Formats: sequence, structure tokens, C-alpha cells
Amino acid sequence: MLNEIVEINRRHTSNGNVASYIPDLGKACKEDLGICIIDKDNKIYTAGEYDTKFTIQSVSKPIVLAMALMDNDWSHVFSKVGMEPSGDPFNSIMKLEMNDTKKPCNPMINAGAIVTTSLIKGDSVEEKEERMLNFFRKIAKNDKLSINYDVYNSEKRTGDRNRAMAYLLKNDGFIEGDVEEVLDLYFKQCSIEIDTVDLARIGTNLATYGVDIETGERVLSESVSRMVKTFMVTCGMYDASGEFAIRVGIPAKSGVGGGILASVPNRMGIGVYGPSLDKKGNSIAGLRVLEDLSRMLKLNIF
Amino acid sequence: MLNEIVEINRRHTSNGNVASYIPDLGKACKEDLGICIIDKDNKIYTAGEYDTKFTIQSVSKPIVLAMALMDNDWSHVFSKVGMEPSGDPFNSIMKLEMNDTKKPCNPMINAGAIVTTSLIKGDSVEEKEERMLNFFRKIAKNDKLSINYDVYNSEKRTGDRNRAMAYLLKNDGFIEGDVEEVLDLYFKQCSIEIDTVDLARIGTNLATYGVDIETGERVLSESVSRMVKTFMVTCGMYDASGEFAIRVGIPAKSGVGGGILASVPNRMGIGVYGPSLDKKGNSIAGLRVLEDLSRMLKLNIF
Amino acid sequence: MLNEIVEINRRHTSNGNVASYIPDLGKACKEDLGICIIDKDNKIYTAGEYDTKFTIQSVSKPIVLAMALMDNDWSHVFSKVGMEPSGDPFNSIMKLEMNDTKKPCNPMINAGAIVTTSLIKGDSVEEKEERMLNFFRKIAKNDKLSINYDVYNSEKRTGDRNRAMAYLLKNDGFIEGDVEEVLDLYFKQCSIEIDTVDLARIGTNLATYGVDIETGERVLSESVSRMVKTFMVTCGMYDASGEFAIRVGIPAKSGVGGGILASVPNRMGIGVYGPSLDKKGNSIAGLRVLEDLSRMLKLNIF
Amino acid sequence: MLNEIVEINRRHTSNGNVASYIPDLGKACKEDLGICIIDKDNKIYTAGEYDTKFTIQSVSKPIVLAMALMDNDWSHVFSKVGMEPSGDPFNSIMKLEMNDTKKPCNPMINAGAIVTTSLIKGDSVEEKEERMLNFFRKIAKNDKLSINYDVYNSEKRTGDRNRAMAYLLKNDGFIEGDVEEVLDLYFKQCSIEIDTVDLARIGTNLATYGVDIETGERVLSESVSRMVKTFMVTCGMYDASGEFAIRVGIPAKSGVGGGILASVPNRMGIGVYGPSLDKKGNSIAGLRVLEDLSRMLKLNIF
Repeated sequence: MLNEIVEINRRHTSNGNVASYIPDLGKACKEDLGICIIDKDNKIYTAGEYDTKFTIQSVSKPIVLAMALMDNDWSHVFSKVGMEPSGDPFNSIMKLEMNDTKKPCNPMINAGAIVTTSLIKGDSVEEKEERMLNFFRKIAKNDKLSINYDVYNSEKRTGDRNRAMAYLLKNDGFIEGDVEEVLDLYFKQCSIEIDTVDLARIGTNLATYGVDIETGERVLSESVSRMVKTFMVTCGMYDASGEFAIRVGIPAKSGVGGGILASVPNRMGIGVYGPSLDKKGNSIAGLRVLEDLSRMLKLNIF
Repeated sequence: MLNEIVEINRRHTSNGNVASYIPDLGKACKEDLGICIIDKDNKIYTAGEYDTKFTIQSVSKPIVLAMALMDNDWSHVFSKVGMEPSGDPFNSIMKLEMNDTKKPCNPMINAGAIVTTSLIKGDSVEEKEERMLNFFRKIAKNDKLSINYDVYNSEKRTGDRNRAMAYLLKNDGFIEGDVEEVLDLYFKQCSIEIDTVDLARIGTNLATYGVDIETGERVLSESVSRMVKTFMVTCGMYDASGEFAIRVGIPAKSGVGGGILASVPNRMGIGVYGPSLDKKGNSIAGLRVLEDLSRMLKLNIF
Repeated sequence: MLNEIVEINRRHTSNGNVASYIPDLGKACKEDLGICIIDKDNKIYTAGEYDTKFTIQSVSKPIVLAMALMDNDWSHVFSKVGMEPSGDPFNSIMKLEMNDTKKPCNPMINAGAIVTTSLIKGDSVEEKEERMLNFFRKIAKNDKLSINYDVYNSEKRTGDRNRAMAYLLKNDGFIEGDVEEVLDLYFKQCSIEIDTVDLARIGTNLATYGVDIETGERVLSESVSRMVKTFMVTCGMYDASGEFAIRVGIPAKSGVGGGILASVPNRMGIGVYGPSLDKKGNSIAGLRVLEDLSRMLKLNIF
Repeated sequence: MLNEIVEINRRHTSNGNVASYIPDLGKACKEDLGICIIDKDNKIYTAGEYDTKFTIQSVSKPIVLAMALMDNDWSHVFSKVGMEPSGDPFNSIMKLEMNDTKKPCNPMINAGAIVTTSLIKGDSVEEKEERMLNFFRKIAKNDKLSINYDVYNSEKRTGDRNRAMAYLLKNDGFIEGDVEEVLDLYFKQCSIEIDTVDLARIGTNLATYGVDIETGERVLSESVSRMVKTFMVTCGMYDASGEFAIRVGIPAKSGVGGGILASVPNRMGIGVYGPSLDKKGNSIAGLRVLEDLSRMLKLNIF
């Protein structure tokens, strides 16, 4: 069934485009479409280009949020970043100025994600980076996860819009510490290389409320796991989050690398890869795959 | 337990204020706090001022949306109103002008709700009003529901901001027909008088995916029931929807009359009444009651 | 020389379009271009279609402002409408909501002009209309000025955007009295039929600081005459006012009927007609005519 | 007479505050108020603290604009910065995102001024700085003008909001070259130390259309001199420019250091110093002095 869903939806890839703002993303194969599902009994199902590597990009935002929520008092985190969906594109600056508080709306848009990254603890830049990478490795159950330095360097070189946001956030007191160091860590988190199996593992952990289904180890607290999934529902798919909730009804987070992380509470984690994006930055065929899957397996949580 | 939750949270009523923009709402008793729960086995639990009457106000929006979705092709409905949370106050006009499409963001903010009301079918103004009232009576299982004409007349007299929105929506092609007639029906839907038992009944119907738990009659299709609950999660509590989803995690819709309609899929419907409002227009003690209830009964859907 | 300037610039008419939002404006002849200059010695120069009739539209705004400033305390007028250029299109609603005060930025944008119209004194709708029309006749020295009722009816029928603004202004306390009556008077002032000789007469009166050059009668006080010219400089050409000030440097006000009223202090009044408009709503060839004229006659006031 | 005007208006200094965003500005004496007038016959009139030194801040913007207009094709300059008043505070970022073009509205707001600074020619950072400083010395006829490095260092350290703007402008293609180098030059231009005599000299040069009244040397072309005065009228006093044009009617530019540069075409240049600022950042008593002066000497150009 999974193969069928992938093959039927592969034609939608021609209606989108791979991200082109940095050269390395532009090299992705537009026709690729892959999926991996891991259910709570640890059964693994795959189809299509499920093992192609790509950079995690914005899918890193909920994971880093989970870390920030474990590293800090929640009240401190939410004094720096809001909880509300914004209805604006992911890289909007305007809202930062219009809100009375100037606070970024939520941790899933760039401004809020940069603030979230600044909350990761560590005595040095190196320690922060190492802690972050280790956390991604643990939740994805993959010790080989690493940073794609070509992508990282491109992000850094072309990141003036994110840099503008970060300086504004610094000016308004939402970022402490050195702006360029925070941005460096942010560009690194976005450049972690993964595949759909890694994403499915992360989704499964969220689905089981933070417990590793094989070892029984608790990676996230139940509350943090719920919070992360809630943000994925209200703000996970950029300014198409509302429509995705209506059509699919699963907590999910997309990235411009083509990845989508989805998690069905109590049932399964899903990783999707399809680098051909629609205008809002979501995988155009990946959305269809999840919509079909939700309908067939009755995954809608509402 | 319910009595305890109500009595503990009643003190929060002193931190808010009853709505004052129309005289009749200002007459509500600020200390009031009541709740009714009806579970899917039709067991009814009540506490506090559960049977005080109040006007439904914005809680009418998801119900009228359900009607509009049954009266029209979905594609037609969503060509007139969007699916995205806006992050703006309920009565924002600005977003109408800033969006490329000028389309109201979603059916839970005033602009979108007025459009939704304009989609109700009927050969005459009277027929539309009758159909609407009958639908509310059916889903609330209460034949006595009727319009509070004092409130309706006040709404109409002081409704210049809604009138401004409606003329802008007319100008941009999102409202067909006569603006004053649409507004008249909108002010009537907001002025329907209910209590928490009525709200709990509606919530139970949504929780059972549209089926009347006593008669087995299908009042809403399953898909419409899911859509309505999804909008309640992403946009049901004005610009505090995101925070409510994080803290409580239940589909819910509030109104400035002090009511909150909540629905826990597969489990129960909840009606809350507490006319003392916070700055965003939500019942200040009602929010706390639902937060406590969610934690105690593990109602969070994420 | 005037004929030459007109004929050289007539070719620019093909790069614009006549206003089409109401049918009667669409009937104008796109190639038309005419001008009338009256200097302070009462010498009259004309060229092109100088005597074609058209509706005054937004060119009425500075004249009605002059009336409002004579009918009311200035502090009252400026408590209802601001003095600042907005940089926004003439029909922007957004700014009304974004400003802390909600006050319309200035009397030259639609929102501010509607407020200005509401300040005209009169015991009845009829008296206000009569006073207004008489004032236009006096300052233009033309007893035959009258309202084009076809245009007025079209404006009224299609004026939902202005209606939206007016209800918002009413809601926020900037309009007193009945909104539909204010709009009615506003649509009438916009529908007064004039030609370039009438506009040049008005411009001459402003150039001589309010004194009729033939009779010596004072029509406006010196201060009111200065205020009106100042608003024409800072906000007279919609969101191209700044560019016009740089390129031409003369107080001027345009309208979508194709008219431009210009006034060179101490020297002359100018009326231009060219119904082919650029994207910002200004006469596309009329702007060029004034630019050439300013350079040749050294009219730039800066 | 000048002494009287200064002494009468000195009491208004108590209604404002000196700028405090950098420590050095906060050291200014709030009660100070001084003026210098130089007419076109080179007569000099002074009163109050006319020779107190202060940093030029935003008053540098029209001077650097003049340089940029002489260093570049005008069409190139205006492809990078607009000509329209914005109606927004001087440090607004929002407008950069809302405009279709993303282009800063005009050279008098910070975003536009930073772009203007980036257009100054020079083979090295040092050469640009030297050329700029020499131009200020020449137009102010004061070889001793120099940079206050304490203020410059403070500006640089606390300039994150300007930094945010500059990175956004870089991202959108309005700044070429290195952002930090452009900002460095911008912070230096703002930190030039002057007094009211220097400002009056600059104003006199603008009043005589660019010609040095003593030597007869042309410092600016006539057109550049007109352009600069036009921008001073439409955008010179932040978001109080419209009101200043109405009340005073003289081309003028203010800075948060407390200075105001004014220029009455064909008549005189005026420098004012009064570091107590109103909420919009203009010298609170300085505005009154200019208003009185305009009324007494009939300086209003409209």
C-alpha cells in the first residue's frame, strides 16, 4: 500500500520546485519521494527514496525546542518566544515590530527558532554544538548523524535575512549573548543530514510521549512531548498549518530540504522526503502522501 | 470533584471584567462560574451556575460553519474564507488588506464568521433565520433556544466595526447579497440565548463525530465534525488559541458572553460559563477550569 | 509654448488608462490633454482640451478642507484628521488600524477626506450640499458648477470600500452624525463637473493667498490658503507626492477624473486635464506637462 | 528679538527629555536652547547656547544625500531609495517588508539614510570617511569639524536595530559591499560634532542654491540643493514633518542630538540647538522657536 501511495503521488513533484536559495539544496532530485513509518511495536515500513540523505532544515525546530524546554524553566522560554500561530510566512520580520511585545510569535517561525536556539545551554560554543548534535542522535537513534558543512557554509553566507532578524531580536532583548554565535549554531542545526528513517524514529518517540520503544528510556518528558506536538499542529507547516490540520489532522513539521516529520500520538512516527516544494515551502507530494495515508489509516486526531 | 474545581477557580473571576461594549452583556454577574459535562454514555455532571442563561456570541461561529459546510460545496466555502490561524485579535481589519487574496484568514475571526453566515441557504431572510435557529436547537437538543432581542438590538446599533468589515468584504467579493441582511443574521446568531448544558450537548455531538448519542441520528457528517474541531484547536480562543492548545489541548471555542464550548473526541462535551473575561476576550476562570480538568482527566489530545 | 508642451506630452497618454471603477469615468477620451494657466495679472493661457468637462473627484479634497477649516476651530479639525503624509495608497484602510490613535493620517487620503466632509456645517443635508456647491462656485468663479448625477449615482452604488472606511471612522469616533449622509455629501463633492479653467481659477485664488484678483474679495484667510497648499505638497499626489515635489516642486492635487489643480504662490494657478492615469491614479501626461512647465518657467518653490 | 524668542521658549525644554539611548547624548544639558541665523548678506545673528557643541546625528542625512547625488547618477540613487514620505517613525523596519519593492521610502529615515551612505564613493573605507568629512567641512565652512569618537563608539555598540535594517537591506539588494563597513561610516557621519553656527552655514548654502555667499564657489548644483530642501519639507522632521510644514513651512531637518538645520530659500540659513526632545525625537523648544520666527519674519514658503 505504501509503495502505491508513493507512486501515485510522485507525479505531483512536477508541480513544485526544489529550494534554490542555496546551491546545495538546488542539487536535490526533484522527482524523489520517499517515506518511512515506524509504529509503536517497532515495525518499520518504507517506500520510494526512503534512504536518500537531505538536510533537516526547519524540521530541526521542534527538536531544538524540546531541548530548550528541558534546559530552561518553561516560563523563561515563553518569556522569549510566544505560543501563537502567526499566519505569516516563516521569515516574516514585520510581526516582530507590530506586536506590542515585539516577541516572536512561536518557535516554529525563523525568528522564534533563532531565539529557541539561543536558549541551548553550554559553557562554550563547542559544547552547545556537541550537546545539540548528541540530542539529535539520541532522539533519532542514529549515532552517525552529522552536519553537512557545504550546506552550513552556504546558509551562513546567504543568511542576511536571518541575521537581520537576529539583530532585531537582540536589540529588543529576546536574544542574550553574541548574535553571530547564535546564528552559527542555528545554521548548524539546519544543516544536519538525515533520511526518512531518522525522521520516523523521532516521530515515534513523540508518539510514545518521549519513551524509547526499544530501550524504555525516557528521552523527553511527557509534557514536553505534548508541547512539541501541539506546536507542530498549530504552526508546523508554515502558513499552511491550518489547511494541513484540516486536511490531514496529524502533528507534523516540514523543512525546505524536503523533509516532513509526522507523529500520530499512541500509534506511529512518519518520515517523508520530497524535495519538490510548493510556494509555501512544504513538500508538494509529501503533503499528498500524508493526506492519503491519514484517510486510509484514519490517523486524523480531531 | 467538579464542584471543587469550580470553587477553587472562582477567585480568578476578580482578575477580569465582563464585556461592556453593549449594555446587556455588562449586566452579567462577574463572579458567576458554571460547568456542565456530558460524556458519551450520556452521563451529565454539573457545578456552579451551570444553568444561568447567556448569549452565545462567538461560540456560534463553529456551529454556523458546520451549517455552511453542509449547505455548500467545501471548495466554495473555502474560496470565501481561509483555513489559517491569524495571530490577530478577533476584530482585526488590517489582515484583510494585507493578505494578497484579501480573504479572511479563517471562520473563527469576525470577518470570516460574517462571510460564513452569508453562505447559509434560504429563499428569504426569514427562512435563513429559521433554518439557522432550528439547526442550533437540533445540535443542542433544546427546542426552546431563542434569540435575546435586547442583545440583538444592541449589537445592531453598536456594530459599526463589523459593518466596516462587511462592506470591505462585499467590496472585495467575499460577500454576496445585501450587507445589512447578512449582518442582521450574524447579529441574531450571536444573540441566541443558551446555558452550559446546551453547550455540553453541542460538544458531545462533536465528540461523537456528529451522531446524536441518544437517538443515533447523524446531525453532522464525520468530516464536518472533524473540520469544526480542527478550527476550534487552531483558532478557537482568539489570539490565545496557541497558548490554550499548549496548556489544555482540547478543541474549544469561546465567546464574549462568557461561554466556552469544548469537545474531547470520543469522550465528552463540555460547556463552561464565566462572564469575567481576560484581555483577549476569553473567560478568565473558565480557562483555568478547563486546564485543571484536562490535567486531572488526561483530556489533552496531543 | 503651451501648445507645444501639450502636443509633445500627448504621446504619454497611451501609457496609462482612464479610470474604470465606475462606468462614466471609463467614457473619457484617453488621448485628451488640456491646460489652463491664469496668472496673478489675470492673464489666461490655454492649450489642448482645456474646456472639456470632467468630474473633480479627489481635487475636491483641498477645497472642502478649506471650508472645514473656516467652519470649525482648527484644533477640532485636527483632532479628527492628522497632518502627516502616509506613504500609502489613497484608499488604504490598514493605517487606520495600525496608528495608535486610529486617526486618518491627513485630509488628502479618502479616509481623511470623508472625515473632513463630515465637518461641513449646515442644519440639514440640503443646506450642507448647497453651502458646499456655493463655495466651489465662488472659489472657481463659475456660477454654473453643478453635480454630475450619473457619476454621483455610480459612486454611491460602488462605494463599498469608502463605506467600510466610514463605518470604521464612525466606530472610532472620528465621524459624528449619520454615516450614509456623510458619504452622500462626499460622493456629491467628488461628482462636481469642472474644466481646467475652473481649476486654474481655484489655483489662482490659492496663489494670491485667498484674495479674488479681480474683485479684491477675500475668499480664504491667508493661513487657510497656506495650509491647503502645504497639504497639496506633502500629500496631494497620492503616494507619488514625494516624487512630484522633487521633480516639479509645486503645490498640486490630482483626481482620478484626470484633473490636476496646481498653484504657484504669488505667481499663477494652473488647471490640467488628462484622463489617462498612471498606476497611482495621477494623470500620466498631466504630470509631464507640469514637470516641463516647472523647468521652463522656474516654478519650483524649493 | 532673537534673544526674546529663545528666552520665552526655553520653558518648553522641561516638557521633553534628552536622548538617552547612548550615554553620551544623555549628558547634554536639558535646559539648553540656542540659535544662529545667517542671512544671504552674510549677517550673523545668535542667541542662547548658540556655540555649544553637539553631535549632528540625523541632520547629517540631507548632507550625505547631497554627496550621494553628486557621486552617482540620480537614477541609480533612486533605484536604491525612494522619494516618498512614510508616515512612520524614523527607525521603522516594517515598511521595508510591506512595500512591494522593499525599497526604503526616503533618504531621511534610518533605512534610507544607511542606503544613501553606502553610495558614497571612495577606494577604501578611509577614503570614504575622509571625503565625507571634507564635504561636511566645506559646506559648513569649518575646517575643524571632526568626529566625536565617544559617541561613535556608543552608536556602534548599541546599534543593533540599525544593524538589523542594514542586513535586511543587504539581503534585498539595496546595499552593496560590506554591511559592517557601511554601518561604520554611517555611525561616523552621525557622530560629527557641530554647533548652530555650522548648521546655519549649511542652511545658508542651501538657501542660495548651493553657492558659497562669500567666495561665490558652487558647493552643490542648483538641482541637488532643491532636492535636498524638498526632502527636508516632506520628510525632515520624522513623523511630525507634515505638522511642521503646516505650522512653520520651512525646509528643516532635526536630529536626536538636539540640532535642527533650517533653510529659507533666497533668504537665510538657521541652526537651532535644544537637546530636550519630544516623543517623536524633535527638539521640543527648537520647534517653538522656529514657529515663532516663521510667523514674525514671514518665512513660510507656501
